[in-house]
Amino acid sequence: MIYVALVHYPVLNRQSEVITSAVTNLDIHDISRIAATYDLSAYYVITPISDQQELVSKLISHWIDGNSPNMDRKRALSLVRICSSIQDACSQIREETGLSPQVVATSAKLRDRSIGWQELRNDLWRNGLPSDDMSPLLLLFGTASGLADEVFDMATGTLEPVEPHREYNHLSVRSAVAITLDRLLGTMS
Amino acid sequence: MIYVALVHYPVLNRQSEVITSAVTNLDIHDISRIAATYDLSAYYVITPISDQQELVSKLISHWIDGNSPNMDRKRALSLVRICSSIQDACSQIREETGLSPQVVATSAKLRDRSIGWQELRNDLWRNGLPSDDMSPLLLLFGTASGLADEVFDMATGTLEPVEPHREYNHLSVRSAVAITLDRLLGTMS
Repeated sequence: MIYVALVHYPVLNRQSEVITSAVTNLDIHDISRIAATYDLSAYYVITPISDQQELVSKLISHWIDGNSPNMDRKRALSLVRICSSIQDACSQIREETGLSPQVVATSAKLRDRSIGWQELRNDLWRNGLPSDDMSPLLLLFGTASGLADEVFDMATGTLEPVEPHREYNHLSVRSAVAITLDRLLGTMS
Repeated sequence: MIYVALVHYPVLNRQSEVITSAVTNLDIHDISRIAATYDLSAYYVITPISDQQELVSKLISHWIDGNSPNMDRKRALSLVRICSSIQDACSQIREETGLSPQVVATSAKLRDRSIGWQELRNDLWRNGLPSDDMSPLLLLFGTASGLADEVFDMATGTLEPVEPHREYNHLSVRSAVAITLDRLLGTMS
């Protein structure tokens, strides 16, 4: 059971202040399609603002309950779950699986308790293709200028940055989610 | 010299008819940031429609010549080049490098003259980290429902789909570009 969460609070702005960022339509679409591709159990959109939760909820039901002939988009968006906090998402996963998820944060900077790509991948693939039998993993991605410190403190560890040795280090969160899931779950031949 | 092109003509719609798709703001932003991350030489936005070319040009100069304090975005968008056709992009690369680029198409479906991920990666890394000395490679990505047949015909070959053995096969083109460049150029540890 692998879950991904896009966190809108608590995240940082460019001045490193803790803020709540706005949900964007395109994050929901792109990341739900990535989640469907790599067979994730769910994609959590995390925001404490009820107006924003409603917006996401409307977007999803437009595609799922509406008359759209786009079945692929329907299937992807059916993976989206709205939660007020990371803690709520963890509780929901606990109820669903009977186990507390391992919570792994992500960052564009190298942080303490860093988890290597190959290390996490090997862990997930220990018994072959990651399946519903494995203990749950929740991967956290920050919007705006990234997750706030308190998130790294509550996580089991932080995955290494995507390309720490390169000079330019400013992927969109959508690209970071795509690359991360492919590195962990992709089957490149 | 590695180049990426986002093709808006000739591409297919859902009914497999050849169309010109509309340029989207977000493709320009996301893919230019990916191009900067993986040190590409340029990112071609290919559209024959002059209004659309002007739109892209305005977007870029807003960020590059304007007063935006976002230097990272400036740097990424400075990689964008607007061309009327894939042939024009190839000519420009030929003028710049003195060599015709190897043109590799991408597709969500398995096609003839398929190039394996590891095969192309090994080719690029033959002499260590891909650098400006290597012969030019142009990677083509289709918008809408993918590149038209004539593009596959003119290309050297087509890269394997991202996850051909999985059931859900509908990534956004932005995600496909991110995953493709990471698979070919990433340095996962």
